[in-house]
Amino acid sequence: MTATTFTLADLAERFGLAIHGDPRTRIDGVATLASAGPTQLGFLANPKYARQLAASRAGALVVTPAVAAGLERPALATDNPAAAFARIAALFERRPPAPAGIDASAVVDPGAQVDASASIGPLCTVAAGARIGAGAILGPQCSVGPDCVVGEGSHLVARVTLVQRVVLGRRVLVHPGAVIGADGFGLAIDRGAWLKVPQLGGVRIGDDCEIGANTTIDRGALDDTVLEEDVRLDNQVQIAHNVHIGAHTAMAGCAAVAGSTRIGRWCLVGGAAGIAGHLELCDRVTILAMSMVSHSIREPGEYASGIPAQDSRLWRRNTARLRKLDQLVRRLGRDDKDEDQ
Amino acid sequence: MTATTFTLADLAERFGLAIHGDPRTRIDGVATLASAGPTQLGFLANPKYARQLAASRAGALVVTPAVAAGLERPALATDNPAAAFARIAALFERRPPAPAGIDASAVVDPGAQVDASASIGPLCTVAAGARIGAGAILGPQCSVGPDCVVGEGSHLVARVTLVQRVVLGRRVLVHPGAVIGADGFGLAIDRGAWLKVPQLGGVRIGDDCEIGANTTIDRGALDDTVLEEDVRLDNQVQIAHNVHIGAHTAMAGCAAVAGSTRIGRWCLVGGAAGIAGHLELCDRVTILAMSMVSHSIREPGEYASGIPAQDSRLWRRNTARLRKLDQLVRRLGRDDKDEDQ
Amino acid sequence: MTATTFTLADLAERFGLAIHGDPRTRIDGVATLASAGPTQLGFLANPKYARQLAASRAGALVVTPAVAAGLERPALATDNPAAAFARIAALFERRPPAPAGIDASAVVDPGAQVDASASIGPLCTVAAGARIGAGAILGPQCSVGPDCVVGEGSHLVARVTLVQRVVLGRRVLVHPGAVIGADGFGLAIDRGAWLKVPQLGGVRIGDDCEIGANTTIDRGALDDTVLEEDVRLDNQVQIAHNVHIGAHTAMAGCAAVAGSTRIGRWCLVGGAAGIAGHLELCDRVTILAMSMVSHSIREPGEYASGIPAQDSRLWRRNTARLRKLDQLVRRLGRDDKDEDQ
Repeated sequence: MTATTFTLADLAERFGLAIHGDPRTRIDGVATLASAGPTQLGFLANPKYARQLAASRAGALVVTPAVAAGLERPALATDNPAAAFARIAALFERRPPAPAGIDASAVVDPGAQVDASASIGPLCTVAAGARIGAGAILGPQCSVGPDCVVGEGSHLVARVTLVQRVVLGRRVLVHPGAVIGADGFGLAIDRGAWLKVPQLGGVRIGDDCEIGANTTIDRGALDDTVLEEDVRLDNQVQIAHNVHIGAHTAMAGCAAVAGSTRIGRWCLVGGAAGIAGHLELCDRVTILAMSMVSHSIREPGEYASGIPAQDSRLWRRNTARLRKLDQLVRRLGRDDKDEDQ
Repeated sequence: MTATTFTLADLAERFGLAIHGDPRTRIDGVATLASAGPTQLGFLANPKYARQLAASRAGALVVTPAVAAGLERPALATDNPAAAFARIAALFERRPPAPAGIDASAVVDPGAQVDASASIGPLCTVAAGARIGAGAILGPQCSVGPDCVVGEGSHLVARVTLVQRVVLGRRVLVHPGAVIGADGFGLAIDRGAWLKVPQLGGVRIGDDCEIGANTTIDRGALDDTVLEEDVRLDNQVQIAHNVHIGAHTAMAGCAAVAGSTRIGRWCLVGGAAGIAGHLELCDRVTILAMSMVSHSIREPGEYASGIPAQDSRLWRRNTARLRKLDQLVRRLGRDDKDEDQ
Repeated sequence: MTATTFTLADLAERFGLAIHGDPRTRIDGVATLASAGPTQLGFLANPKYARQLAASRAGALVVTPAVAAGLERPALATDNPAAAFARIAALFERRPPAPAGIDASAVVDPGAQVDASASIGPLCTVAAGARIGAGAILGPQCSVGPDCVVGEGSHLVARVTLVQRVVLGRRVLVHPGAVIGADGFGLAIDRGAWLKVPQLGGVRIGDDCEIGANTTIDRGALDDTVLEEDVRLDNQVQIAHNVHIGAHTAMAGCAAVAGSTRIGRWCLVGGAAGIAGHLELCDRVTILAMSMVSHSIREPGEYASGIPAQDSRLWRRNTARLRKLDQLVRRLGRDDKDEDQ
């Protein structure tokens, strides 16, 4: 297999970067500073790690102009090294082949519409009323249910389930095990038992969203659950029915949002954070990992309630006090009239 | 496609509701108060939202008798509007067709028993020794392992896995990605490495349970893991081996229960709450979201340990103090002999 | 079906155990002390439960020599009853048949290498460039992607997805729904939107690892995500890209580790605990359930930050105080100059 190779001149022209050093320098891969070899390209986005440059064997680097000026080895300079490196790395990505057409082992209902340029992989199922757009790819074992739409250029990597009434926009990327459009969790109490509240809504996912492995996004009870464009969800995220997530919001692994909550644009939700139901979060709210949001947030900013672990014996003593904190403060209050000032 | 239509008189008779206004009012769908149009039915269960009624364009409403008395538009009245609305909404549910019989692409072992009225969808696998009851539905890509039983009228929506020795009662509904009957997490240390403890038990799930998407319920180590009837689990819930959950208990998304814990009837477990192993929770215990239960609970009531997020700078200062809270209290104690009173 | 039966003499010889009582005692199964009948074997590992012995109807027991000395019924004695019992229990395990060869319904790319002794179950897919080793078992509906390796004797129980560049060692056991080798969550901001950072690395899993149901392990961004040998992950664990987990470390259900963190050997991570990214944990660190680790840990020991639930009214009062704890301490400080000592 012949490796893909580019000169710095190739890369500089393609991505609009400035060249430092020999433009003929050849690059056949990308790597971390620590593991890059002399024909590989490394990058430095965070000046905090600048001391790693000296030890790196990388043949060339992607850096800011200021860093490039001080380098003795070849480099590509840009104000946004992380983005430039991401674009260059994509040149070296090997994607599994996805030939247009329907694999002989797939089960596609005659009532489904599949664009001739779409690729339906082995052992997929596509139900009546589903539509698969131009250039869309369904990897192995995906299941697209009734009335679901997979937009142009979208990619279900493998074993993705779109249950019912799910509409994916264009260029949506969904990782294995994700379940989109399962029933929301709706229950009423009736005659001493639970009565299921039918879930009749759908899920709408905007262009350029990415949905992580084993993430679940439920269909709405009556209206739809909505992700606007460019929303990015990591693995094992749970989005309940009728949630609305604004454009460009990103949520790290294991985060969860309860029903009917509305999250703004450009929010960042840390790993395993939980957001209660029926709340509103404005744009540009950051929730740190493992925090619990139980009230609406009206001001952009960073919010937290996670507690860093400490030695467990010490922690047990502290939690014992915490469980009596109100009592402690009240007692202090008896002695100290300043308390409520 | 002709829409389903009902008059208020139809619905009142079918579900035992009182009619206010014109009984010939025609309804062709259900919707939220905010989005309902003049041929749709809305509902108001919580009087807190009564002011939304005026702005709603809904053609008719399901409300309590007291609310109905003050309305100028047609309504159906009942003491339990949420349950009545759920029953009416079910009339408008469109379910994917599930013809009796085994899809040609399914792989059913000759040693499995499948009732003639059951529906086995495309690309399912059913192993030797499995039994699929009357009227049961397996959607696409489900896998039913050895010695598993799917009771009468149960429904595996899609891509559900019953691993081994799993017995589902009647009318159990399981959402995609759920894994029931995988090995519990049992380990012994032996000669400087882990030794797997064989998991030989099964899982028994009672009638009318509902299991959410990507939820996992492990088989018991020796005895069975048990869900009594009408237990309702949301998505991404984790139930470890030998857990026993009482009838009518409901658990929200991402909740987790560790091994051998016994939970009572009519308990409510909030999202992402965690319950440690080898505990007992009595009937009618409510655990709020993101709480940690590390001791048995003997009294019905509501329990919590989740902390609401606040501004992160302020929170960091508070956690820094929390980590020294015991020390603080001890210091106060030196000055204040009342502390232990 | 004839039951498997062993005498105590058989078991003692096979596993190097001491016999107390009649060596001809016949055993046809294993069970808990509470449910064992007179032809079944029970065990007692934890002396704390010794009082359960009297009530048990077990025909024989696996216990320590000290406990055996006081027993009137037959027993097998060893210093490690839990391990001996696990080995004996494995004799009674019924595994689904896994005949060598490729099931007719599986879709195996001609460019894949499958050892003749491997078993490829119904409706599996195996991509070009994948290799399945001697004696490996793929249960129903597994998907093995490009450039993935399933080592000798490894077992994918059912519906496991190995996405891309995943290498499993020998005797690795993976439970249903697990997704190994999906893209890590890598994003750069560019021109007012997210830009995906290509994920080019793989996942390497050492010999004798066990991976739970619906657990996710992402591929590395540039280098690999690594689990050394004998790592044990329970269900719904999330391992982000470029994490490195040392040999023999075990993580309970719903634990999560963010990107590039390095965890030592023989660590124990409790259920739903979260470990932030870019940290180092040394060997033999125990993290209790639901704790958050946000700093590196250099000393072996036990760490925690989970809070036990209490009555919710009381808890609400305590959290209200906690949110003002820094302010309280500062106020106290004005009156008490000892504070910072």
